[in-house]
Amino acid sequence: MKSSLTQRAINRLTQYHTILRDYAKKGIKNITSSQISILLKIDETQVRKDVKSINCKGKCKVGYTVEELKTIIEEVLDYKIKKRAYVIGAGNLGIALSKYSKFSEFGLEILALFDVDSDKIGKDIDGKKIYDLKLLREKIIESNVEIAILTTPNKVAQEVACYITECGIKYIWNFAPTILSVKDDVKVWHENLIGSFLQFCAISIK
Amino acid sequence: MKSSLTQRAINRLTQYHTILRDYAKKGIKNITSSQISILLKIDETQVRKDVKSINCKGKCKVGYTVEELKTIIEEVLDYKIKKRAYVIGAGNLGIALSKYSKFSEFGLEILALFDVDSDKIGKDIDGKKIYDLKLLREKIIESNVEIAILTTPNKVAQEVACYITECGIKYIWNFAPTILSVKDDVKVWHENLIGSFLQFCAISIK
Repeated sequence: MKSSLTQRAINRLTQYHTILRDYAKKGIKNITSSQISILLKIDETQVRKDVKSINCKGKCKVGYTVEELKTIIEEVLDYKIKKRAYVIGAGNLGIALSKYSKFSEFGLEILALFDVDSDKIGKDIDGKKIYDLKLLREKIIESNVEIAILTTPNKVAQEVACYITECGIKYIWNFAPTILSVKDDVKVWHENLIGSFLQFCAISIK
Repeated sequence: MKSSLTQRAINRLTQYHTILRDYAKKGIKNITSSQISILLKIDETQVRKDVKSINCKGKCKVGYTVEELKTIIEEVLDYKIKKRAYVIGAGNLGIALSKYSKFSEFGLEILALFDVDSDKIGKDIDGKKIYDLKLLREKIIESNVEIAILTTPNKVAQEVACYITECGIKYIWNFAPTILSVKDDVKVWHENLIGSFLQFCAISIK
Protein backbone atom coordinates (compact mmCIF):
# COMPACT_ATOMS: atom_id res chain seq x y z
CA MET A 1 0.00 0.00 0.00
CA LYS A 2 1.10 3.53 -0.77
CA SER A 3 2.32 4.55 2.67
CA SER A 4 1.72 8.27 2.22
CA LEU A 5 -2.07 7.85 2.18
CA THR A 6 -3.90 9.09 5.26
CA GLN A 7 -6.72 7.15 6.88
CA ARG A 8 -9.25 9.62 5.49
CA ALA A 9 -7.81 9.31 1.99
CA ILE A 10 -8.02 5.51 2.21
CA ASN A 11 -11.64 5.84 3.36
CA ARG A 12 -12.52 8.11 0.45
CA LEU A 13 -10.75 5.87 -2.10
CA THR A 14 -12.73 2.84 -0.89
CA GLN A 15 -15.91 4.89 -1.31
CA TYR A 16 -14.92 5.94 -4.84
CA HIS A 17 -14.31 2.24 -5.51
CA THR A 18 -17.83 1.38 -4.34
CA ILE A 19 -19.24 3.90 -6.82
CA LEU A 20 -16.95 2.69 -9.61
CA ARG A 21 -18.04 -0.89 -9.00
CA ASP A 22 -21.70 0.15 -9.32
CA TYR A 23 -20.93 2.09 -12.52
CA ALA A 24 -18.96 -0.84 -13.97
CA LYS A 25 -21.85 -3.20 -13.25
CA LYS A 26 -24.18 -0.88 -15.16
CA GLY A 27 -21.72 -0.84 -18.09
CA ILE A 28 -20.94 2.89 -17.72
CA LYS A 29 -17.50 3.67 -19.19
CA ASN A 30 -16.64 7.11 -17.75
CA ILE A 31 -17.15 9.04 -14.54
CA THR A 32 -16.40 12.66 -13.65
CA SER A 33 -15.07 14.03 -10.36
CA SER A 34 -18.31 16.02 -10.19
CA GLN A 35 -20.45 12.85 -10.31
CA ILE A 36 -18.41 11.29 -7.50
CA SER A 37 -18.52 14.48 -5.41
CA ILE A 38 -22.31 14.79 -5.74
CA LEU A 39 -22.89 11.18 -4.64
CA LEU A 40 -20.58 11.53 -1.63
CA LYS A 41 -21.58 15.13 -0.90
CA ILE A 42 -17.92 16.13 -0.72
CA ASP A 43 -15.92 18.79 -2.48
CA GLU A 44 -15.06 18.13 -6.12
CA THR A 45 -11.52 19.44 -5.70
CA GLN A 46 -10.98 16.80 -2.98
CA VAL A 47 -11.94 14.06 -5.43
CA ARG A 48 -9.57 15.44 -8.07
CA LYS A 49 -6.76 15.71 -5.53
CA ASP A 50 -7.24 12.12 -4.33
CA VAL A 51 -7.33 10.72 -7.85
CA LYS A 52 -4.27 12.71 -8.84
CA SER A 53 -2.43 11.41 -5.75
CA ILE A 54 -2.72 7.84 -7.06
CA ASN A 55 -1.57 8.87 -10.54
CA CYS A 56 -4.81 8.40 -12.45
CA LYS A 57 -5.38 10.93 -15.21
CA GLY A 58 -8.77 12.14 -16.41
CA LYS A 59 -9.75 13.72 -19.71
CA CYS A 60 -11.37 17.13 -19.96
CA LYS A 61 -15.20 16.88 -20.11
CA VAL A 62 -15.05 13.04 -20.28
CA GLY A 63 -13.66 12.38 -16.81
CA TYR A 64 -11.95 9.19 -15.70
CA THR A 65 -12.21 5.74 -17.27
CA VAL A 66 -14.25 3.68 -14.78
CA GLU A 67 -12.27 0.44 -15.20
CA GLU A 68 -8.90 2.21 -15.08
CA LEU A 69 -9.62 4.19 -11.90
CA LYS A 70 -11.16 1.10 -10.27
CA THR A 71 -8.06 -1.00 -11.06
CA ILE A 72 -5.65 1.68 -9.85
CA ILE A 73 -7.50 1.95 -6.52
CA GLU A 74 -7.40 -1.85 -6.16
CA GLU A 75 -3.66 -1.84 -6.76
CA VAL A 76 -2.90 1.10 -4.48
CA LEU A 77 -4.95 -0.35 -1.62
CA ASP A 78 -3.65 -3.92 -2.03
CA TYR A 79 -7.07 -5.44 -2.71
CA LYS A 80 -5.46 -8.41 -4.42
CA ILE A 81 -3.30 -9.39 -1.45
CA LYS A 82 -5.09 -12.16 0.43
CA LYS A 83 -5.66 -11.43 4.11
CA ARG A 84 -6.99 -14.56 5.81
CA ALA A 85 -8.72 -14.21 9.15
CA TYR A 86 -10.71 -15.96 11.86
CA VAL A 87 -13.71 -14.44 13.61
CA ILE A 88 -13.52 -14.93 17.39
CA GLY A 89 -17.02 -14.80 18.86
CA ALA A 90 -19.95 -16.15 16.83
CA GLY A 91 -22.56 -13.73 18.15
CA ASN A 92 -24.69 -11.48 15.95
CA LEU A 93 -21.80 -9.17 15.06
CA GLY A 94 -19.40 -12.05 14.34
CA ILE A 95 -21.98 -13.69 12.11
CA ALA A 96 -22.84 -10.41 10.36
CA LEU A 97 -19.15 -9.79 9.58
CA SER A 98 -18.71 -13.39 8.37
CA LYS A 99 -21.61 -12.90 5.95
CA TYR A 100 -20.39 -9.51 4.74
CA SER A 101 -19.64 -10.50 1.17
CA LYS A 102 -17.88 -7.27 0.28
CA PHE A 103 -14.86 -8.14 2.45
CA SER A 104 -13.63 -10.72 -0.06
CA GLU A 105 -13.39 -8.06 -2.79
CA PHE A 106 -10.79 -6.36 -0.63
CA GLY A 107 -8.77 -9.50 -0.10
CA LEU A 108 -10.16 -10.26 3.35
CA GLU A 109 -11.10 -13.91 3.55
CA ILE A 110 -12.80 -15.13 6.71
CA LEU A 111 -12.02 -18.85 6.99
CA ALA A 112 -13.92 -19.84 10.13
CA LEU A 113 -15.47 -18.67 13.39
CA PHE A 114 -14.63 -19.70 16.95
CA ASP A 115 -16.82 -19.69 20.04
CA VAL A 116 -17.15 -21.35 23.43
CA ASP A 117 -20.93 -21.92 23.23
CA SER A 118 -21.69 -25.61 22.57
CA ASP A 119 -24.99 -24.62 20.92
CA LYS A 120 -23.06 -22.69 18.25
CA ILE A 121 -20.03 -24.99 17.78
CA GLY A 122 -20.37 -27.15 14.66
CA LYS A 123 -22.80 -24.81 12.89
CA ASP A 124 -22.03 -23.37 9.49
CA ILE A 125 -22.27 -19.68 8.46
CA ASP A 126 -22.28 -19.31 4.68
CA GLY A 127 -19.79 -22.15 4.36
CA LYS A 128 -17.67 -21.04 7.33
CA LYS A 129 -17.68 -23.43 10.26
CA ILE A 130 -17.95 -22.43 13.92
CA TYR A 131 -15.22 -24.25 15.88
CA ASP A 132 -14.62 -24.68 19.59
CA LEU A 133 -12.24 -21.90 20.71
CA LYS A 134 -10.11 -24.65 22.31
CA LEU A 135 -9.14 -25.77 18.78
CA LEU A 136 -7.72 -22.36 17.80
CA ARG A 137 -4.04 -23.23 18.31
CA GLU A 138 -4.39 -26.39 16.25
CA LYS A 139 -6.24 -24.56 13.44
CA ILE A 140 -3.63 -21.77 13.37
CA ILE A 141 -0.86 -24.36 12.98
CA GLU A 142 -2.80 -25.96 10.08
CA SER A 143 -3.75 -22.77 8.24
CA ASN A 144 -1.16 -20.19 9.32
CA VAL A 145 -3.85 -17.54 9.91
CA GLU A 146 -2.52 -14.56 11.88
CA ILE A 147 -5.50 -12.15 11.82
CA ALA A 148 -8.40 -12.36 14.29
CA ILE A 149 -11.59 -10.33 14.17
CA LEU A 150 -12.59 -10.09 17.81
CA THR A 151 -16.35 -9.83 18.43
CA THR A 152 -16.74 -11.38 21.88
CA PRO A 153 -18.73 -9.74 24.68
CA ASN A 154 -16.81 -6.88 26.24
CA LYS A 155 -16.32 -8.52 29.62
CA VAL A 156 -14.29 -11.44 28.22
CA ALA A 157 -12.49 -9.55 25.43
CA GLN A 158 -9.22 -9.03 27.34
CA GLU A 159 -9.04 -12.65 28.51
CA VAL A 160 -9.79 -13.94 25.01
CA ALA A 161 -7.22 -11.54 23.51
CA CYS A 162 -4.53 -13.04 25.80
CA TYR A 163 -5.55 -16.55 24.83
CA ILE A 164 -5.65 -16.02 21.06
CA THR A 165 -2.29 -14.22 20.99
CA GLU A 166 -0.78 -17.12 22.95
CA CYS A 167 -2.20 -19.39 20.24
CA GLY A 168 -0.35 -17.41 17.56
CA ILE A 169 -2.62 -14.53 16.48
CA LYS A 170 -0.52 -11.47 15.53
CA TYR A 171 -3.18 -8.95 14.39
CA ILE A 172 -6.47 -8.23 16.12
CA TRP A 173 -9.28 -6.19 14.59
CA ASN A 174 -11.12 -5.49 17.83
CA PHE A 175 -14.86 -4.75 17.83
CA ALA A 176 -15.28 -5.11 21.60
CA PRO A 177 -15.62 -1.65 23.17
CA THR A 178 -12.55 -2.00 25.36
CA ILE A 179 -8.88 -1.16 24.93
CA LEU A 180 -6.94 -4.42 24.86
CA SER A 181 -3.57 -4.79 26.48
CA VAL A 182 -1.42 -7.16 24.39
CA LYS A 183 2.20 -8.21 23.89
CA ASP A 184 4.45 -5.81 21.97
CA ASP A 185 4.59 -7.99 18.86
CA VAL A 186 0.78 -8.02 18.50
CA LYS A 187 -1.00 -5.23 16.62
CA VAL A 188 -4.53 -4.18 17.55
CA TRP A 189 -6.90 -2.06 15.52
CA HIS A 190 -9.65 -0.78 17.80
CA GLU A 191 -12.72 -0.47 15.62
CA ASN A 192 -14.45 2.60 16.84
CA LEU A 193 -18.11 2.64 15.82
CA ILE A 194 -18.80 5.20 18.50
CA GLY A 195 -16.15 7.55 17.14
CA SER A 196 -17.74 7.26 13.71
CA PHE A 197 -21.15 8.00 15.07
CA LEU A 198 -20.02 11.03 17.07
CA GLN A 199 -18.28 12.37 14.00
CA PHE A 200 -21.54 11.91 12.07
CA CYS A 201 -23.40 13.86 14.74
CA ALA A 202 -20.75 16.58 14.78
CA ILE A 203 -20.90 17.22 11.06
CA SER A 204 -24.59 16.82 10.46
CA ILE A 205 -26.96 17.02 13.42
CA LYS A 206 -27.76 20.57 14.46
CA MET B 1 -19.40 19.52 19.98
CA LYS B 2 -16.17 21.45 19.65
CA SER B 3 -16.15 21.96 15.90
CA SER B 4 -12.39 22.23 15.53
CA LEU B 5 -11.86 18.55 16.39
CA THR B 6 -10.83 16.31 13.53
CA GLN B 7 -12.32 12.86 12.99
CA ARG B 8 -9.09 11.25 14.20
CA ALA B 9 -9.03 13.41 17.32
CA ILE B 10 -12.66 12.44 18.07
CA ASN B 11 -11.69 8.79 17.60
CA ARG B 12 -8.77 9.08 19.98
CA LEU B 13 -10.80 10.94 22.60
CA THR B 14 -13.45 8.19 22.58
CA GLN B 15 -10.66 5.67 23.10
CA TYR B 16 -9.21 7.68 25.99
CA HIS B 17 -12.73 7.72 27.42
CA THR B 18 -12.94 3.91 27.21
CA ILE B 19 -9.71 3.64 29.21
CA LEU B 20 -10.88 6.27 31.73
CA ARG B 21 -14.14 4.40 32.22
CA ASP B 22 -12.22 1.19 32.98
CA TYR B 23 -9.92 3.08 35.40
CA ALA B 24 -12.89 4.74 37.13
CA LYS B 25 -14.58 1.36 37.58
CA LYS B 26 -11.44 0.05 39.27
CA GLY B 27 -11.40 3.11 41.57
CA ILE B 28 -8.14 4.48 40.15
CA LYS B 29 -7.94 8.24 40.69
CA ASN B 30 -5.16 9.38 38.32
CA ILE B 31 -3.82 8.49 34.89
CA THR B 32 -0.73 9.67 33.01
CA SER B 33 -0.39 10.40 29.30
CA SER B 34 2.25 7.66 29.27
CA GLN B 35 -0.23 5.05 30.56
CA ILE B 36 -2.76 6.02 27.88
CA SER B 37 -0.11 6.01 25.15
CA ILE B 38 1.16 2.53 26.12
CA LEU B 39 -2.35 1.03 26.06
CA LEU B 40 -3.16 2.56 22.67
CA LYS B 41 0.37 2.14 21.30
CA ILE B 42 0.41 5.75 20.18
CA ASP B 43 2.79 8.59 20.81
CA GLU B 44 2.66 10.16 24.26
CA THR B 45 2.97 13.69 22.87
CA GLN B 46 -0.20 13.03 20.82
CA VAL B 47 -2.09 12.18 24.01
CA ARG B 48 -0.83 15.35 25.71
CA LYS B 49 -1.75 17.46 22.68
CA ASP B 50 -5.28 16.01 22.53
CA VAL B 51 -5.90 16.51 26.24
CA LYS B 52 -4.54 20.05 26.08
CA SER B 53 -6.83 20.82 23.13
CA ILE B 54 -9.89 20.16 25.29
CA ASN B 55 -8.50 22.30 28.13
CA CYS B 56 -7.80 19.59 30.68
CA LYS B 57 -4.73 20.17 32.78
CA GLY B 58 -2.54 17.49 34.30
CA LYS B 59 -0.13 17.64 37.22
CA CYS B 60 3.55 16.83 36.93
CA LYS B 61 4.26 13.15 37.86
CA VAL B 62 0.61 12.60 38.95
CA GLY B 63 -1.05 12.96 35.55
CA TYR B 64 -4.70 13.72 34.95
CA THR B 65 -7.60 13.20 37.34
CA VAL B 66 -9.56 10.28 35.87
CA GLU B 67 -13.03 11.65 36.68
CA GLU B 68 -12.18 15.15 35.48
CA LEU B 69 -10.75 14.08 32.12
CA LYS B 70 -13.64 11.63 31.64
CA THR B 71 -16.22 14.36 32.31
CA ILE B 72 -14.50 16.89 30.02
CA ILE B 73 -14.45 14.36 27.14
CA GLU B 74 -18.15 13.64 27.71
CA GLU B 75 -18.94 17.35 27.56
CA VAL B 76 -16.77 18.08 24.54
CA LEU B 77 -18.21 15.15 22.56
CA ASP B 78 -21.83 15.82 23.56
CA TYR B 79 -22.33 12.43 25.23
CA LYS B 80 -25.19 13.82 27.29
CA ILE B 81 -27.24 14.97 24.30
CA LYS B 82 -29.82 12.28 23.53
CA LYS B 83 -29.70 10.99 19.96
CA ARG B 84 -32.71 8.73 19.36
CA ALA B 85 -32.59 6.34 16.42
CA TYR B 86 -34.31 3.45 14.66
CA VAL B 87 -32.48 0.47 13.20
CA ILE B 88 -33.73 -0.37 9.71
CA GLY B 89 -33.06 -4.04 8.95
CA ALA B 90 -33.24 -6.58 11.76
CA GLY B 91 -30.55 -8.93 10.43
CA ASN B 92 -27.47 -9.99 12.37
CA LEU B 93 -25.82 -6.58 12.11
CA GLY B 94 -28.99 -4.66 13.03
CA ILE B 95 -29.49 -6.91 16.06
CA ALA B 96 -25.82 -6.66 17.07
CA LEU B 97 -25.96 -2.84 16.96
CA SER B 98 -29.26 -2.83 18.90
CA LYS B 99 -27.63 -4.90 21.64
CA TYR B 100 -24.46 -2.80 21.73
CA SER B 101 -24.88 -1.42 25.22
CA LYS B 102 -22.06 1.09 24.94
CA PHE B 103 -24.03 3.26 22.50
CA SER B 104 -26.29 4.54 25.28
CA GLU B 105 -23.29 5.95 27.19
CA PHE B 106 -22.72 8.21 24.20
CA GLY B 107 -26.30 9.41 24.09
CA LEU B 108 -27.37 7.12 21.25
CA GLU B 109 -30.64 5.49 22.14
CA ILE B 110 -32.02 2.87 19.74
CA LEU B 111 -35.79 2.83 20.24
CA ALA B 112 -36.88 0.08 17.86
CA LEU B 113 -36.03 -1.98 14.79
CA PHE B 114 -37.91 -2.23 11.49
CA ASP B 115 -37.97 -5.06 8.97
CA VAL B 116 -40.14 -6.52 6.21
CA ASP B 117 -39.72 -10.17 7.29
CA SER B 118 -42.92 -11.43 8.96
CA ASP B 119 -40.87 -13.99 10.94
CA LYS B 120 -38.99 -11.16 12.62
CA ILE B 121 -41.80 -8.59 13.04
CA GLY B 122 -43.17 -8.57 16.60
CA LYS B 123 -40.03 -9.99 18.18
CA ASP B 124 -38.16 -8.16 20.90
CA ILE B 125 -34.40 -7.44 21.02
CA ASP B 126 -33.30 -6.47 24.54
CA GLY B 127 -36.55 -4.55 25.05
CA LYS B 128 -36.58 -3.04 21.54
CA LYS B 129 -39.44 -4.21 19.35
CA ILE B 130 -39.12 -5.17 15.68
CA TYR B 131 -41.89 -3.40 13.72
CA ASP B 132 -43.17 -3.80 10.19
CA LEU B 133 -41.32 -1.30 7.99
CA LYS B 134 -44.75 -0.17 6.74
CA LEU B 135 -45.35 1.38 10.17
CA LEU B 136 -42.27 3.63 10.01
CA ARG B 137 -44.08 6.84 9.00
CA GLU B 138 -46.60 6.40 11.81
CA LYS B 139 -43.87 5.66 14.40
CA ILE B 140 -41.83 8.69 13.28
CA ILE B 141 -44.89 10.93 13.76
CA GLU B 142 -45.38 9.47 17.26
CA SER B 143 -41.76 9.64 18.42
CA ASN B 144 -40.14 12.33 16.26
CA VAL B 145 -37.09 10.13 15.56
CA GLU B 146 -34.95 11.50 12.71
CA ILE B 147 -31.93 9.15 12.76
CA ALA B 148 -31.91 5.76 11.02
CA ILE B 149 -29.19 3.13 11.26
CA LEU B 150 -29.43 1.33 7.94
CA THR B 151 -28.40 -2.34 8.01
CA THR B 152 -30.46 -3.85 5.17
CA PRO B 153 -28.96 -6.10 2.51
CA ASN B 154 -27.00 -4.10 -0.04
CA LYS B 155 -29.33 -4.75 -2.95
CA VAL B 156 -32.33 -3.06 -1.30
CA ALA B 157 -30.42 -0.31 0.54
CA GLN B 158 -31.09 2.44 -2.03
CA GLU B 159 -34.80 1.64 -2.30
CA VAL B 160 -35.16 1.51 1.49
CA ALA B 161 -33.22 4.79 1.83
CA CYS B 162 -35.72 6.51 -0.49
CA TYR B 163 -38.64 5.10 1.47
CA ILE B 164 -37.37 6.01 4.95
CA THR B 165 -36.46 9.56 3.93
CA GLU B 166 -39.97 9.99 2.49
CA CYS B 167 -41.24 8.85 5.89
CA GLY B 168 -39.27 11.64 7.58
CA ILE B 169 -35.79 10.30 8.35
CA LYS B 170 -33.20 13.11 8.09
CA TYR B 171 -29.95 11.35 9.08
CA ILE B 172 -28.81 7.92 7.90
CA TRP B 173 -25.90 6.01 9.40
CA ASN B 174 -25.41 3.62 6.51
CA PHE B 175 -23.81 0.19 7.06
CA ALA B 176 -24.78 -1.18 3.64
CA PRO B 177 -21.71 -1.22 1.39
CA THR B 178 -23.21 1.09 -1.21
CA ILE B 179 -23.20 4.85 -1.71
CA LEU B 180 -26.77 6.09 -1.23
CA SER B 181 -28.25 8.82 -3.34
CA VAL B 182 -30.61 10.93 -1.19
CA LYS B 183 -32.38 14.28 -1.18
CA ASP B 184 -30.26 17.34 -0.37
CA ASP B 185 -31.76 17.82 3.10
CA VAL B 186 -30.82 14.29 4.17
CA LYS B 187 -27.37 13.58 5.63
CA VAL B 188 -25.70 10.20 5.18
CA TRP B 189 -22.71 8.84 7.04
CA HIS B 190 -21.28 5.92 5.10
CA GLU B 191 -19.83 3.57 7.70
CA ASN B 192 -16.72 2.23 6.12
CA LEU B 193 -15.59 -0.98 7.80
CA ILE B 194 -13.51 -1.82 4.77
CA GLY B 195 -11.66 1.49 4.97
CA SER B 196 -10.89 0.76 8.61
CA PHE B 197 -9.62 -2.69 7.81
CA LEU B 198 -7.40 -1.52 4.96
CA GLN B 199 -5.95 1.15 7.21
CA PHE B 200 -5.23 -1.57 9.80
CA CYS B 201 -3.45 -3.63 7.15
CA ALA B 202 -1.49 -0.60 5.93
CA ILE B 203 -0.13 0.29 9.33
CA SER B 204 0.50 -3.15 10.72
CA ILE B 205 0.68 -6.07 8.31
CA LYS B 206 4.03 -6.39 6.59
